[in-house]
Amino acid sequence: MSKRTHYCGEVNENLTGNTVVLEGWVAKRRDLGGLIFIDVRDREGIVQVVVGNEYPKALKIAESLRSEYVVRIEGVVQPRKDINEDLKTGKIEIIAQNIECLNTSKTPPFYITDEAEVDDNIRLKHRYLDIRRPKLMNNLILRSKTAKVIRDYLDENDFLEIETPILAKSTPEGARDYLVPSRVNSGSFYALPQSPQILKQLLMVGGTDRYYQIARCFRDEDLRADRQPEFTQVDIEMSFPQMESFMTLMEGMVKEIYTKIKEVSIDTPFRKIDYSDAMNRYGSDKPDLRFGMEIKDLSHIVKDAEFKVFSQAVKNGSVRAIKAPAAHYSRKEIDRLTEFVKKYKAKGLAWISLKSEGVKSPIAKFLKEEELNAIIEETGATTGDTIFIVADIDKVVLQSLGSLRIQLAKELDLIDKNKLEFAWVVNFPLFDYDEEEERYVAAHHPFTQPNKEDIELLSTSPGKVRAQAYDLILNGVEVAGGSIRIHSQEIQSKVFDAISLSKEEAQEKFGFFLDALEYGAPPHGGIAFGFDRLVMLLAETDSIREVIAFPKTTSATDLMSDAPSTVSDRQLDELKLNLIKK
Amino acid sequence: MSKRTHYCGEVNENLTGNTVVLEGWVAKRRDLGGLIFIDVRDREGIVQVVVGNEYPKALKIAESLRSEYVVRIEGVVQPRKDINEDLKTGKIEIIAQNIECLNTSKTPPFYITDEAEVDDNIRLKHRYLDIRRPKLMNNLILRSKTAKVIRDYLDENDFLEIETPILAKSTPEGARDYLVPSRVNSGSFYALPQSPQILKQLLMVGGTDRYYQIARCFRDEDLRADRQPEFTQVDIEMSFPQMESFMTLMEGMVKEIYTKIKEVSIDTPFRKIDYSDAMNRYGSDKPDLRFGMEIKDLSHIVKDAEFKVFSQAVKNGSVRAIKAPAAHYSRKEIDRLTEFVKKYKAKGLAWISLKSEGVKSPIAKFLKEEELNAIIEETGATTGDTIFIVADIDKVVLQSLGSLRIQLAKELDLIDKNKLEFAWVVNFPLFDYDEEEERYVAAHHPFTQPNKEDIELLSTSPGKVRAQAYDLILNGVEVAGGSIRIHSQEIQSKVFDAISLSKEEAQEKFGFFLDALEYGAPPHGGIAFGFDRLVMLLAETDSIREVIAFPKTTSATDLMSDAPSTVSDRQLDELKLNLIKK
Repeated sequence: MSKRTHYCGEVNENLTGNTVVLEGWVAKRRDLGGLIFIDVRDREGIVQVVVGNEYPKALKIAESLRSEYVVRIEGVVQPRKDINEDLKTGKIEIIAQNIECLNTSKTPPFYITDEAEVDDNIRLKHRYLDIRRPKLMNNLILRSKTAKVIRDYLDENDFLEIETPILAKSTPEGARDYLVPSRVNSGSFYALPQSPQILKQLLMVGGTDRYYQIARCFRDEDLRADRQPEFTQVDIEMSFPQMESFMTLMEGMVKEIYTKIKEVSIDTPFRKIDYSDAMNRYGSDKPDLRFGMEIKDLSHIVKDAEFKVFSQAVKNGSVRAIKAPAAHYSRKEIDRLTEFVKKYKAKGLAWISLKSEGVKSPIAKFLKEEELNAIIEETGATTGDTIFIVADIDKVVLQSLGSLRIQLAKELDLIDKNKLEFAWVVNFPLFDYDEEEERYVAAHHPFTQPNKEDIELLSTSPGKVRAQAYDLILNGVEVAGGSIRIHSQEIQSKVFDAISLSKEEAQEKFGFFLDALEYGAPPHGGIAFGFDRLVMLLAETDSIREVIAFPKTTSATDLMSDAPSTVSDRQLDELKLNLIKK
Repeated sequence: MSKRTHYCGEVNENLTGNTVVLEGWVAKRRDLGGLIFIDVRDREGIVQVVVGNEYPKALKIAESLRSEYVVRIEGVVQPRKDINEDLKTGKIEIIAQNIECLNTSKTPPFYITDEAEVDDNIRLKHRYLDIRRPKLMNNLILRSKTAKVIRDYLDENDFLEIETPILAKSTPEGARDYLVPSRVNSGSFYALPQSPQILKQLLMVGGTDRYYQIARCFRDEDLRADRQPEFTQVDIEMSFPQMESFMTLMEGMVKEIYTKIKEVSIDTPFRKIDYSDAMNRYGSDKPDLRFGMEIKDLSHIVKDAEFKVFSQAVKNGSVRAIKAPAAHYSRKEIDRLTEFVKKYKAKGLAWISLKSEGVKSPIAKFLKEEELNAIIEETGATTGDTIFIVADIDKVVLQSLGSLRIQLAKELDLIDKNKLEFAWVVNFPLFDYDEEEERYVAAHHPFTQPNKEDIELLSTSPGKVRAQAYDLILNGVEVAGGSIRIHSQEIQSKVFDAISLSKEEAQEKFGFFLDALEYGAPPHGGIAFGFDRLVMLLAETDSIREVIAFPKTTSATDLMSDAPSTVSDRQLDELKLNLIKK
């Protein structure tokens, strides 16, 4: 038999009458006695093969086949009577003339179809079988294609792909590092990079001008369902950037991805939202803009109200509301929503339902009629709506209403799943105040350039300094984040002062980087796309595991290979390490 | 000023009369008083800028510029009188109208030119400055372009780019692993992958059909000058391969690289050499085929000689020779060459010079005339040649003559540097015999498919089994190595038997992989190119550090960031680790 002529999924009616050779797996076999139907599967799809008694040798082999046996089949393409519209190849079938069994298979622990409901741990243990299932396979194909589109785009725009080390230096800021003990320099450790941030900036100092890398990054954090100990980011940096044109360049890349991968045209430029706007209107720095339900500030209405819950809250915070297009909330549902906002530290959830029979609200009796009317007017509520109100410090009010907004929109099915609402969030604060440590900390990282007009505030009001930073959001998800970086040692020192990092500490932590800034660092800036998340959005899946070939569990374990695992005493001796027994 | 219009290196005579904007570094500045010449450098090259007193503002700034200051310059391109043939841009210069100084620079610790001789450690410490030097910069550009050509080629041939984990399972065979202690599963360790070998095979079991990855790999070995603790390989695997057509596919890729990167056309198909031929004729499994000087076996001539050094050697080994086209070796030179072969455990080096005045040889007196004549005839030596002879066990004879062959060819300048002699080395032995452990070990790795006709020898004469393996060599360097893999559990077990790996051990070490083979593993095979080495060949450099952005020293240290480094007690506590003090 000759070698493969087509992938299974590629055989279609245009090949009618042609002889094809396929290689793949037996997905299904139905033996009708003297006539056997085999669904053969490969990476690109499934096709139906028919084996009849005109070819007794082929029939004999077909009789011996079982699920997941590996076969090579030669046959002629012909139209199919019972057309299967669900299948790309559903209009044809292949009349087998030759069959070769290339390998047998034990009965797999689960059916290799997308429909089979399989326990997550079983899937992970037999990942090589899970990958054969069309959905996961298609995600891997999608991921590969997306990487290609990105590389092509960046290459056309003069970006160089440059690899930075995995055996890197422990970074003192940020999340917990994964450490790698050094054998040659015993007592010393490498760290796996949390991102190539400093190195890509050094590449700019080095004059490489435009850099990218689809880079593996590592964080030893307690994992949530959507996190992995290692993840991939599209890491990009350029010299002499102008913030506007850099954002345009990145929009071009996103547009290209959606055009080539999803065959969807998206409009550019993306809208820009100030961080403070995003927070005040949506209670989130990554608002989902596919629907309205904006947060309204009621503080000016209730600041002198006799209802102390509101008027007191305004003194140190605010009273704000969202309006949901539903007036039918039961006591039980309200309780549930109250519990929901309590997760965000809200002490309670006030509500006002505008029913056709009149206003219903447990707080109505505490409010003057003009206050109530002003609230209704401010929120724009009409009959059939419910107003939800939280009164607290700003952070709590905004977080709880922002989250409630998303929750209600989901419950009320207000989100158009076909919409792609991209936006840039800009004018982030440069610093956050860390209550515990009683000092400012870098909101992004300490190399972010302050807005020009805010530089004088660095020493006087760090909290007011805005950053030349930009996050790209899509439908409420942060897709990418970046900034223009500091290229002047002087400003870098001021920023370190603002986060109370002494010269000595700074020198110890980033000394080599600060040195580099003194040798002709060019203006530069960049961005990093969460590649896993981007692929998740393209694949329309909620789970990061569905876009990674060999993912780990939430306890950072690889169930297939059983990593991490114990090592020999010899290995530990070589590293001059002892395990501390519990 | 508008943004950059061209890279410095791109400005040429076709732009004469145009206004251009450049951004880069001051490479050199000559102040002739009222007329300043500045060489401006960026990633793509250097261009000369002239600043005169027609633009006093620009002149004032130009006066303040020093080496490595960062500038933006606007000016008009004009032909240059004193054409500089060494420079791409040497036919033009730019008359500056506007200059902006974007950053200053301290005086760098070395000149940013290729000519400057700089201590390796200083270069590594200030790598960001070293990268600005044209040679290193061009190597990084070359590396990026090579990766792109490879990706494009593999993409066109339906290969998917799939990422495999860096936090992997410790592999018991092979070199020493880098370990990563797990915090969540304390006492357990991940290992950084020495190669994605098992995972890429599992991807084939998973039906991904064609996989590639430009993959980072790690080995904790004592480093030599040309090794790095982390290195990059172009890792490729495909299902249903036919060895011949797979090799053709890979030849196509290499041809594409040389065409696109070096603008050189290379002939395919590459020649194939049997491993045994390579060893017998060149004393190496990666022979340099740019010159002859083949090894000749003299054993049949001297096996019964009275000269015991020879006749005894034949009993457990052989007597072989190479012929060098020089007859002028002094006693001192012979001593030097004798020392050279002793490094390969040869006990001595016999020689016969055919001088115009007659044969000169310290061993002539021990040989019969017909023996001497037969030796001369066998080696094809004529007047002006010297025959070098080693008598020992085969391994020593071949290694020492193979190395001497290269050494003499270099000394005698016999190697045509412009030649590209590619070849596939095939029919490797599947096993090597480990004298120390008194057992066979896998020559490549234990998943290599034996030659079909040798399978019966697995249990009877493992040493004679040949592998379906292929190494791609170029000019004496191994560029890539691969094999067809075992896809049958039965053959895999036989191979484990041959290397005396018990069922239990095999299960413990590779259990999950052996399981996978039972679920419909397709025939598959692949290859891995040493990417760093490939780029070294393309860049025509002997040092791996010249093709890596941030390399480490031979003691696996990053002199720039000072990694590895000590970590805090808190970090060690979290990992439940103690350092063993010396």
